[in-house]
Amino acid sequence: MAPSPIVDIHTHVYPTTYLALLRSRTEVPYLLDLPDKLAPPRLIILPSDDDLALPAHQRGRPIDSSYSSINQKIDFMKTHDITTSVVSLANPWLDFLSPEEGPQWAEKVNNELEDICSTSLKCLYAFATLPPSAPASRIVGEIHRLSLLPHIRGIILGTTGLSKGLDDHGLEPIWSALESAKLLIFLHPHYGLPSSVYGPRASEYGHVLPLSLGFPMETTVAFTRMWLSGVFDRHPKLKVLIAHAGGTVPFLSGRIDSCVQHERHFPENEGGKRGPKRGLKEVLRENVWLDAVVYSPTGVRAAVEVVGKERVLFGTDHPFFPPLEEGAEEWMSMGTNVHAVKEAFGDDEQAAAKVLGGNAIELLGLDVASDG
Amino acid sequence: MAPSPIVDIHTHVYPTTYLALLRSRTEVPYLLDLPDKLAPPRLIILPSDDDLALPAHQRGRPIDSSYSSINQKIDFMKTHDITTSVVSLANPWLDFLSPEEGPQWAEKVNNELEDICSTSLKCLYAFATLPPSAPASRIVGEIHRLSLLPHIRGIILGTTGLSKGLDDHGLEPIWSALESAKLLIFLHPHYGLPSSVYGPRASEYGHVLPLSLGFPMETTVAFTRMWLSGVFDRHPKLKVLIAHAGGTVPFLSGRIDSCVQHERHFPENEGGKRGPKRGLKEVLRENVWLDAVVYSPTGVRAAVEVVGKERVLFGTDHPFFPPLEEGAEEWMSMGTNVHAVKEAFGDDEQAAAKVLGGNAIELLGLDVASDG
Repeated sequence: MAPSPIVDIHTHVYPTTYLALLRSRTEVPYLLDLPDKLAPPRLIILPSDDDLALPAHQRGRPIDSSYSSINQKIDFMKTHDITTSVVSLANPWLDFLSPEEGPQWAEKVNNELEDICSTSLKCLYAFATLPPSAPASRIVGEIHRLSLLPHIRGIILGTTGLSKGLDDHGLEPIWSALESAKLLIFLHPHYGLPSSVYGPRASEYGHVLPLSLGFPMETTVAFTRMWLSGVFDRHPKLKVLIAHAGGTVPFLSGRIDSCVQHERHFPENEGGKRGPKRGLKEVLRENVWLDAVVYSPTGVRAAVEVVGKERVLFGTDHPFFPPLEEGAEEWMSMGTNVHAVKEAFGDDEQAAAKVLGGNAIELLGLDVASDG
Repeated sequence: MAPSPIVDIHTHVYPTTYLALLRSRTEVPYLLDLPDKLAPPRLIILPSDDDLALPAHQRGRPIDSSYSSINQKIDFMKTHDITTSVVSLANPWLDFLSPEEGPQWAEKVNNELEDICSTSLKCLYAFATLPPSAPASRIVGEIHRLSLLPHIRGIILGTTGLSKGLDDHGLEPIWSALESAKLLIFLHPHYGLPSSVYGPRASEYGHVLPLSLGFPMETTVAFTRMWLSGVFDRHPKLKVLIAHAGGTVPFLSGRIDSCVQHERHFPENEGGKRGPKRGLKEVLRENVWLDAVVYSPTGVRAAVEVVGKERVLFGTDHPFFPPLEEGAEEWMSMGTNVHAVKEAFGDDEQAAAKVLGGNAIELLGLDVASDG
């Protein structure tokens, strides 16, 4: 029997168009080339990275070729037996562009993503990127255009939406367009939490606090606001894939719902429940998918319990979290997440296989049959 | 067979001494009596509550007699078949006092807690309160004094510690004293997250976002900083009970550890691992207990998976989250958490019974045998 396909739905790339855009800028985010041409350029991605007191090679983070090279992406896939990857632009996407610049760059970047996929012999698909600062009609136009591109299966979206968060009524036409186009929303963090929460010693822990806690907490707040504002009541067919196994949504869903049921602000509905008409449990089971990028069997099990085993999808977060050891071929982040899925399901190897690949193939209609 | 005892280890009280202290103040936190003597006073607990543009009866939150009446606590216990409660002062504890005021108020409040318990016919024990602004020697002195009080089983501690968080080296003598005195630390949130993360529409959701998300996220950051700074390497016998099932620690523990293993900032230890010598998994299984105040079987299961079934302890968070319906006897928050524990364990009724009571009795050495 052929081994089951493995599909990676959380894997990032900075296409060359996008790197050129970042290179042309002098304000955050921007790409800083170093005098040493062999050293990778630095991505100044957060205001805190833009520290002119530091030498250039210590500012921001190095962006080596693994962030843009499709060959390296495919090598990574081969090394780790990944059949198909659904690539997405890494943060900060196009959030920082002006309303005038946004639409043209979205079209360029999305076209490059489509080109990459269409020349990749069926091993790549993509989530595209919207220009959030553009007028709603332009964003809706790009969604319609994307729905005709053969390898685009959804869009990646930051937690700020059009700038005011995902409970912003200004998003209504965007939600409607995505719902009609049946494009999946891949909800992904970028902004983290205000650095004050990490305390005066945060820098001693490198990026651990913002990456391990800030990202999932940002995601959880964003999705909860989206639900509380009634988006899923108004758009019952909207499909959202939440990054990093939902941030912390699976673990906190009971507490969130309990707080709503104890909050006078929300009047009782007909069924005696408070809050949005479609309760959190229902929305999690009908509108939400979660990736399995959570690095523990406990996390995978919690994710499966709240959305169902057919709605959890394997991912790697490549090329982030590379091995620190020189020359290491196998990525620990891959191994940890594969192991977490297998361990979470124990004897139910079929369910594990579906999370590793089958669920994504069905949900996104990926053509992997004639591959390899 | 007599039903198994139920022990509530997360249940709060404002002793009369403490209410008098709050009533004597005019700065946050303070207690504001209303002209209508029948209306409960308002607790102005957060700077955002101190809004002089609002009429007095809309500022802060009402503090009715359920927050201070021991009779009502015991009535609640009887209604819900709770054998024993381990009460703790509700936030913001004594965090706001000056170094001069702190120690005397700690002694007064803790003595009142001890008195309440000693006159309660074995149905009450307490977690005491430290004066965090006091000189370390005074705090250590209070810890020694507490260790001699017969009904004190630990101390409740906010996430700011002495003011700089739980990774502050200034806490070293406190950790040592708590470790020697074998007093449990009940780590509890109060400060939440900066309100900017909730966005411009937050007030439309009442207290849902800060209570359901801010509290657990604050707790998770605090505990992670404590672990990262090596507290458990230096104090291997320290015992920490983390509120609300660890905030989100059980769900994020895999991600936290993965981020540490991918962070160059931490050199490799002898065993090839990075980060504190005692890894997160080990600390969770040897130094950490979690309450079961998580409102879902998924949350309880995740808690049990990371610390072990003998280290999860039932709690209610009484008198917070009262029923919104007039005259309701049964509290939904109690029912939800009991159901979550029973559902999490399925047929293993013995393990569920231990979480509901037996684990707390063993851990804290509670005398419940001759009760009721």
